[in-house]
Formats: sequence, structure tokens, C-alpha cells
Amino acid sequence: MTGTTLIHDASQVVRISEDGIDAIADGSIAITDGTVDDIGTTAEITEKYPVDAVETVIDASGKTVLPGYVDPHTHAVFAGERINEFVAKLSGKSYQEIQSEGGGILSTVRSVRDASLETLTENLLDQLDVMLAYGTTTAEVKSGYGLSTDAELKLLEAVDRANGRHAIDVIPTFLGAHAVPDEQEEEAYVDQVINEQLPAVADNDLAVFCDVFCDEGAFSLDQSRRILEAGIDHGLTPKIHAEEFLRLGGAQLAGDLEAASADHLLQATEEDAESLAEGGVTPVLLPGTAFTLGAEYAKPTLFEDAGASVALASDFNPNCYSQSMEFTISLACNGMRMTPTAALRGATQHAAEALQITDGRGTLQEGAPGDVIIADVPRFEYIPYNTGVQTTETVLKDGQVVHNE
Amino acid sequence: MTGTTLIHDASQVVRISEDGIDAIADGSIAITDGTVDDIGTTAEITEKYPVDAVETVIDASGKTVLPGYVDPHTHAVFAGERINEFVAKLSGKSYQEIQSEGGGILSTVRSVRDASLETLTENLLDQLDVMLAYGTTTAEVKSGYGLSTDAELKLLEAVDRANGRHAIDVIPTFLGAHAVPDEQEEEAYVDQVINEQLPAVADNDLAVFCDVFCDEGAFSLDQSRRILEAGIDHGLTPKIHAEEFLRLGGAQLAGDLEAASADHLLQATEEDAESLAEGGVTPVLLPGTAFTLGAEYAKPTLFEDAGASVALASDFNPNCYSQSMEFTISLACNGMRMTPTAALRGATQHAAEALQITDGRGTLQEGAPGDVIIADVPRFEYIPYNTGVQTTETVLKDGQVVHNE
Ligand SMILES: [Zn+2]
Ligand SMILES: [Zn+2]
Repeated sequence: MTGTTLIHDASQVVRISEDGIDAIADGSIAITDGTVDDIGTTAEITEKYPVDAVETVIDASGKTVLPGYVDPHTHAVFAGERINEFVAKLSGKSYQEIQSEGGGILSTVRSVRDASLETLTENLLDQLDVMLAYGTTTAEVKSGYGLSTDAELKLLEAVDRANGRHAIDVIPTFLGAHAVPDEQEEEAYVDQVINEQLPAVADNDLAVFCDVFCDEGAFSLDQSRRILEAGIDHGLTPKIHAEEFLRLGGAQLAGDLEAASADHLLQATEEDAESLAEGGVTPVLLPGTAFTLGAEYAKPTLFEDAGASVALASDFNPNCYSQSMEFTISLACNGMRMTPTAALRGATQHAAEALQITDGRGTLQEGAPGDVIIADVPRFEYIPYNTGVQTTETVLKDGQVVHNE
Repeated sequence: MTGTTLIHDASQVVRISEDGIDAIADGSIAITDGTVDDIGTTAEITEKYPVDAVETVIDASGKTVLPGYVDPHTHAVFAGERINEFVAKLSGKSYQEIQSEGGGILSTVRSVRDASLETLTENLLDQLDVMLAYGTTTAEVKSGYGLSTDAELKLLEAVDRANGRHAIDVIPTFLGAHAVPDEQEEEAYVDQVINEQLPAVADNDLAVFCDVFCDEGAFSLDQSRRILEAGIDHGLTPKIHAEEFLRLGGAQLAGDLEAASADHLLQATEEDAESLAEGGVTPVLLPGTAFTLGAEYAKPTLFEDAGASVALASDFNPNCYSQSMEFTISLACNGMRMTPTAALRGATQHAAEALQITDGRGTLQEGAPGDVIIADVPRFEYIPYNTGVQTTETVLKDGQVVHNE
């Protein structure tokens, strides 16, 4: 059986499909030419795909096979370091003090503007390596540290190059409206985003999504609407950073515009959750952000109760420095008190929904791409249970081993 | 230079001594016959210890050298699994429901009583492997899942055997007073601990410390005092689980008895903190416990303000399933808002104080044992900053490489 990879004798294979999670004890899986052929008990699968008849054989005894994680919200492309801010924060400095000393987003913006395209690409590739080692096989990456047409294009070109050079599927999001740069007035900058940045990004086909940071100190609800509607005109699907610090109405806007996702949602209400559910918008929760801020977590039940499917993301960025979706899952369970089942679906299936992926990535079922983690645990619930300890051992992308501890 | 190991060109060497932390940029360290000879800049050290003159050379370019972690509070020796309880808790079951279904500590007690000495030893060795991979070079391990003379002795014998077979220095604590077993009345069990278990443990020289779980649903203040005083009579230094759920006075008792440490302390007051500081008792905070319970963290400043040196521990046990001191440090910073400096001292120097270790373990200075971590980060502050991502790469114990990623 040329082109077939058999992963056999797993302690558990976690099938994920429209029907939810089905953890198959003593399971095996066959992948042919990059696509999942069959999943079942080891007895079933090895009868159809005998060990000595397939091209590649991987023994997963005592281990768990699950779909690769999908990370639907990262700011993984940047330059410079912000470790000093982490230390300053813990020494009691306020965000305002740190900003007034040249820290915060605008510090990264300066580093990005000074960096070459190749440096940004290499930096992102390094981060993708870590993400992959912790099981991520598909990741969204936002621009937003350029804040000028040139620098935003440079970031998205780095994303495009890194995507071509790395096993992880990288999905680009344009986030020109991340902050207002030092050199511009707010309204003038919004105009630039709409009239210069967006057309250039669209002309060069550099983004799938258009995102806005709708919050106090960032962009108003009205500005957010204008930018996202302009994005739609250019063929970019809306996403929004909504209700993180102050409830400005971003969730309702996401519902109106049928955005792919609304993210953060710490201050969201029941009404907001319903608006998301009605608009088919995936709520994306980012427990790492709350964790690194020492703040309260978002409430997953608010969205679950409204009938929405909660997705999880790392929010990896210089201010929330964890590339690990394993850790995100652990925070979702231990911090946000989600069940391991809900957290795993949030980090795979629902995360793919937040990126409007429909080719089966984020699931593990017949016909889906062979994006697979072999984790060194007997059951998937150990991933959040054995918190702080790496569980991902081997990662396959489209049926090929792309990472091995 | 026979017997000398040179670790050179580190991005940072973190010297820890009575004077606190001194992070030496572009540093090197020489270890001879298991003991740290010299620490300084690479220029200084390589002049005294030329690369081609020493026996072993390790290039630490871009990496950080720091002392091995000391984990002063674990329940790492046990049998059986409690992952089902983790899932049940997150599905909304109360601790009472879980207990009434046969879960909780007594479930582990049943597994331990059924397990052989060799199984317990092997189980502990497996856990020590993970602890070592995350940088722990010295760990305290408590009994307390036996709750009968035989089973408590079996646990402590397993600790003794594992200690002899593993690179980690394991320090044994007798915790017969962890819970009251099903088959006994409380007072009768306290009598057994005092009159049977303690003498047997002491006669067999199987423990350094005697610990008590002083809390609601566990042992009263009076019972705790009786047990710890009996321990002192048998040459065992007191330790205490104090003020975790209810403030019963365990911290003050620890102060009175000049215990080595008082641990948990979530409900402790200023008065308690002062009593610890006066008695020379090290407060040991266990942020992993709060994290896995989804509860509030202890307040390090309470103890710092009283003049005590705060130590950190993993509290690794089936209910708080993380063997990683890296993760403990991350929780201390991100969750408890300690500075990276305070957290690192808490996980090394102060942790050693909680175990009354005086031979230099937990420090990194001339004359201290060569227990060293080489972490794949440019500065030690990345350990809590890059949270959820493993940073320990190489571990040396007494100057010998005992772990390498
Ligand atoms: Zn974001
Ligand atoms: Zn304990």
C-alpha cells in the first residue's frame, strides 16, 4: 500500500467529527496520500491495513492519537524583545508607565519597522517551530505591528514566506487597526487603513481575514465597523477583538457582519453571546491573556449556553508569550473550568470554524487531512491534567512526520 | 584538569548566594569533582580553566545556567490513577460527590496498599524522570497514602530505593497524618501514628521530617501538635500543611515548634506570617494547587512583608498533577505576581531552606554542589515569561550530566 501510513496500537485514538468526540480505546488510523483513510480499533484497522503491507508504520503503544491543534488567534510575527516589560509589570509598574517609557505595542512596531523581511520571516519560522513542537498544525497569524502600509505589507509577506517554508499551515489576517501609530491622528490613521493599507493587502492577496482591535484606547465601534466593512468590500472576512477591557459593542457588530469570529470577550454579556450565536460567529477565548495579566478568565458557559461553539487560541504575542496550544487547553480546563472534551474541541474543530476552514482540518475523521499528533499520554484528558508538562511527541502534517521529539 | 567540567559562553550565569541573585552576562562556570569551583565572565573563567585543559566542555552559547530546582513539597510516591476525578470535577462534581464515589485521597490509599514495594519504587522513578527533565535536582517526597504502619513504611522504603537509583536527591518526609483511613476512628488513628508509625519510621531511619495535614476534614490543631511533638521526640523535624482551607492555627504552631516549613497558607494572616518569620519557619507556597482547584492564590507579599523568605513547591500529587518546577515558577509570576527573581530564589535557595539544607544545594556559588540547569533561554526571566514551554535542556547533578534533551 504505497503512500499509506499506519499508526497502530494507540492507547486511544480521538476521532473528532460533526458528531463530537469519540475516543477509541486501543485504536489505529490509516492515512493515505495525506488524507485519513480509516480510523477504528487496532483489530479492525490492521486487518484492512496489515503492518507489513503499508509504506510507513508508527507504533503508538501507550500513546494517544489526536488531530493537530488549530490556533486561530496569534500575533506571532514580530521583531524585538519585550521581556523587560514582563519584569517591569511584575515589579509593580503600570501599563501606562511602561508605555510612557517606550514599551507596549508601539515598541514592537519600532522593531518591526527596522527589521528586514527576511528577519521577520526567520523570526516567525522560529516561533512556528515551537508551536509545532506543542502540536499546532494550522495557525492564524495577524499583522498589526507595522501600522504603515509598507510595514503591514512586509509583515504579511513574511507570513506568506514562512507559510511556504514551514509545515504549519499559516492563515494570514490583516490587522492594520491594531493600534494608532505615534506619527498619526486616529481618524487619519483609520482613513489610511481603509484607503491605502486594505487595498494594498487585497491587491497582493496577502490576507484572508481583516481584524480590528475594538476597545478603549484602540478603535471605536464606529471605526471598527468602517474598517471591517471596507475589508468585506475587498473580499476579506471580518474578525474582531471584542469586549476585552471595555464593552464597546464589538460582539454585536460581529453578529451583524457575520464575522468569522469575535475574540477575547471578557466583558461580553448574554445578549452578546446570543448575537454571536445568531450570526454564526465563533467566540474565540484566549485564556493565556488573562493568565499573563493575572486577570479573570472569560466565561465559556456564557457562549455555550447561547448555543455557540467556543474556540480556544493561544493569543501568542510579546505580551502573552506562550506558543503552546497544550498550555491553552490546560488553562481552559484548570482556569476556565471547561471539560477536557470541550477544550479539545475548542482547540481543534471549533478553532477551525473560527477560521472558516471546511476541508476537515481540526477534525480527525475519514477524508480529513492527515494532521495528527501522537501524544505521550494514555488518554487525551492527560493533556490538561498533566499541566506544564509537554505531551506532544510526534506530529504529522498531511500524513508526513514533521516533528519528532 | 581532571575532574573539571567547564560550561562556557552562557548568555547568562545566575549566581545565587546569601547576597541574592547576580546574573552574570556572558558567563562561564567551572565545576571540579562535583563542586562549583568558580563562576564569572567567560573571559575570567576560560583564562583560569582553558577549554583544552579541562576534562569536560559544554558550550552554553545563547543559554542560561542556573542552579537545579529544589522542590520542597511533593506527594510523588503513589499508585493508581485519578484522571477520572479530574474529568468529574470539571463536569461539575463536588469533592464530596467524588469522595462518596470512592475517589479522593482514600482511592490512592487503596491502590498503594495493593501495590508492591517495587511497583511504588518504579512509579516514583518515572515521576522523578519528569521532574528532572524540568530541572529539579533535589526533591522532598512525602508518604501519606499508606495510612497504616506497613503501608507507610512501604512508601518510605520506596522513596529510599528510588533515591538510591535516581540522580535526584530525594528527601523523605513521614506524613502518616495525611488523612484518617476508612477503617479507623480519628483519635485511634492519631494514637497509631504516634505510637506505632512514628517509632517504626524513626527506627528504620526512613524520614527526615514529620508532617501533618492540619485542616478541616483532616487533623485538628491539637492532634497536629501531639503528632509533631512526638516526631520531634523521635528526631524528626516538623513540617505542616497549614491554613489551606480553614485557618486552624497551624502556622502559629509551626512558629512555636520552629518547624522547617509551613505549607499552603492560603488563609494565613499577617499575624501568622509574623509567627513564621519569628520562628525561622519557611513559608512554602504551592501555586499549582490553587491553579488546579481554580481557586485564589496565596499572597507572597504577606510573608515577604513579615520578613520571611518565600519558598515555592510543585505539590505534585494525583490531584495537582504537575511535576514541573518551571511551571511552578511561571504560576508564581503570572498567577501570584512574584518577580522572576523572587520566584527563582523561591524555587532554589528558599526551597532548600524549607528543607534545612545547608550544603549549598539550591544556590549556585563557589563551594556549592554542581547541581546545574542549562536552560535554552537567553535570560532566566524567560522561564516564567515563555510559560507552558519547556526551557530546561541539560541538567547536571554533582557536576555530571544526568539529563539532556
Ligand atoms: Zn489579539
Ligand atoms: Zn501536600
